[in-house]
Amino acid sequence: MGSVDDRLADVGLSVPAPPVPVAVYVPAVRTGSYVYTSGQLPLSSGELLATGKVGDAVTAEVAYDCARQCALNAIAAVQSLVDLDDVVRVVKATVFVASAPDFTGQPGVANGASELLGTAFGDIGQHARSAVGVAVLPLDAPVEVELVVEVR
Amino acid sequence: MGSVDDRLADVGLSVPAPPVPVAVYVPAVRTGSYVYTSGQLPLSSGELLATGKVGDAVTAEVAYDCARQCALNAIAAVQSLVDLDDVVRVVKATVFVASAPDFTGQPGVANGASELLGTAFGDIGQHARSAVGVAVLPLDAPVEVELVVEVR
Amino acid sequence: MGSVDDRLADVGLSVPAPPVPVAVYVPAVRTGSYVYTSGQLPLSSGELLATGKVGDAVTAEVAYDCARQCALNAIAAVQSLVDLDDVVRVVKATVFVASAPDFTGQPGVANGASELLGTAFGDIGQHARSAVGVAVLPLDAPVEVELVVEVR
Repeated sequence: MGSVDDRLADVGLSVPAPPVPVAVYVPAVRTGSYVYTSGQLPLSSGELLATGKVGDAVTAEVAYDCARQCALNAIAAVQSLVDLDDVVRVVKATVFVASAPDFTGQPGVANGASELLGTAFGDIGQHARSAVGVAVLPLDAPVEVELVVEVR
Repeated sequence: MGSVDDRLADVGLSVPAPPVPVAVYVPAVRTGSYVYTSGQLPLSSGELLATGKVGDAVTAEVAYDCARQCALNAIAAVQSLVDLDDVVRVVKATVFVASAPDFTGQPGVANGASELLGTAFGDIGQHARSAVGVAVLPLDAPVEVELVVEVR
Repeated sequence: MGSVDDRLADVGLSVPAPPVPVAVYVPAVRTGSYVYTSGQLPLSSGELLATGKVGDAVTAEVAYDCARQCALNAIAAVQSLVDLDDVVRVVKATVFVASAPDFTGQPGVANGASELLGTAFGDIGQHARSAVGVAVLPLDAPVEVELVVEVR
């Protein structure tokens, strides 16, 4: 069916190329009926959409876009192992937001990921979620997103 | 049996009303024999028990109470999907503590959640746990707790 | 076979004594075909290898060694429940790095854990991973590592 691709295309998005595996860990692991992704950064064509802390160098609006890109990259990590139409449910999303100490809008940032998952997967994209504000992320990325997905 | 309710009532506690689902994510997801909760804040009757960083505006004692409330809310999230007497095991608790940089007592804070889980579930409430000190949490909450629970 | 012990012995390492269970939570939980560990600190013979934030009091090199020790301790936690030769796959490693706000080398630190898992388990040690920089960790530890492992 390609329904995930179709839904994303409807809003002008597409699943990016799968992340390049590195030696010591992999973009995603399938175990039984689940795929766990590695934490994904807001990389697009190999470049971070932004760097810095949200509430300081990065606005909540830019961070929302970063969270959306992280989620797209997480979907690409899932697709590196299974057909996206074999996803039964997005179970859990954890959204780490590199935050200035006084920035408390992590849920709004995390919505960038959550809404993208809804766009891509519809009802089965409804997930449990944790959004937390961390000190700093790899490469000074503003957002990192990991997923647990149930597959058939 | 209602044993969880009974055990909590013995110490003057009860499971709160289930968290209100929002559009883009849900309080908990059941997948196979597991329930994953969203990260829960120390909300009671819609109000945070405290705001700020532990070791700064919030004492470890108040943060312990916050962790307990987070765990109660996580139990409510589980109960929104399954009967609590169908819980087979509390598998994992992750406790995020918004921490002043020199506050290293996250385990003591997290005990507020862990001890509540023991009170509610007895032996099957014994869980694996991670306690970490993060920069800041949604709504400036001092603590956020998420659970993975095995159910029948 | 004892292959994990053999592989670690080849590089001069061994699985430490299992972590001491505390009352309110446990070092690891088995549920179905999975073992979830608690977050492990870089304790060796009861002492932290280092304390402080990476990028400040702790160098990336020392933090790499800490991450390796955390992973060894996580393997010990798994071994407290199952024979290590019954591990089918290391599914997920989450590496929390207590970080100075301008330290962005969490992946290099986390490699200390990832490479140890590769040494210990070979191909089935290849895991999904998240590396995040947090404000502070229990006991002022520089690194904390938790694992999800599939077992037979």
